[in-house]
Amino acid sequence: METLKVSSKSNPNSVAGAIAGALSKEPAVELQAIGAGAVNQAVKAVAVARRFLKEAGKDIGMIPGFVDIEIGGEKRTGISIKVFITGESKDNVSTESEE
Amino acid sequence: METLKVSSKSNPNSVAGAIAGALSKEPAVELQAIGAGAVNQAVKAVAVARRFLKEAGKDIGMIPGFVDIEIGGEKRTGISIKVFITGESKDNVSTESEE
Repeated sequence: METLKVSSKSNPNSVAGAIAGALSKEPAVELQAIGAGAVNQAVKAVAVARRFLKEAGKDIGMIPGFVDIEIGGEKRTGISIKVFITGESKDNVSTESEE
Repeated sequence: METLKVSSKSNPNSVAGAIAGALSKEPAVELQAIGAGAVNQAVKAVAVARRFLKEAGKDIGMIPGFVDIEIGGEKRTGISIKVFITGESKDNVSTESEE
């Protein structure tokens, strides 16, 4: 599973694009964020990614947890957010095939 | 669906208790948060609630979105987080009955 590090300066739209890209290859992707600003950008990115993926007929959910992250030899507690595809929305499914 | 308003000063453990309480009555509960500090507390609360509910044999997920919230006549964009039960964990299921 790919891990995307999100900071308080990350652009939610860019992170949303990275989430959508990762989920086109794998069923889940992990976001890691340390601090309120970073967690906020991560959550906004998932909300934006939902919009992107809805157009592709997919819906996503997330599961948050705590994670110890080492930065420069120092241990800090961050938030890990697992983002995963919950199902295919039926809005956009092609009905051309008649099998 | 019950709505819990989360602020940057909310205690994640208290909010986690409220989430667990709401999910014992209904399959989903909504959290609303405005600002990075509030979103961070909401996400931490869900992570803590997951620990609580795991002990009761349940797992939860969340779906974030944007929401317009009116405060004192002013419209602000906040984050709405729908928290829902994803399934029963099998760790804690009683196996006493032999039917």
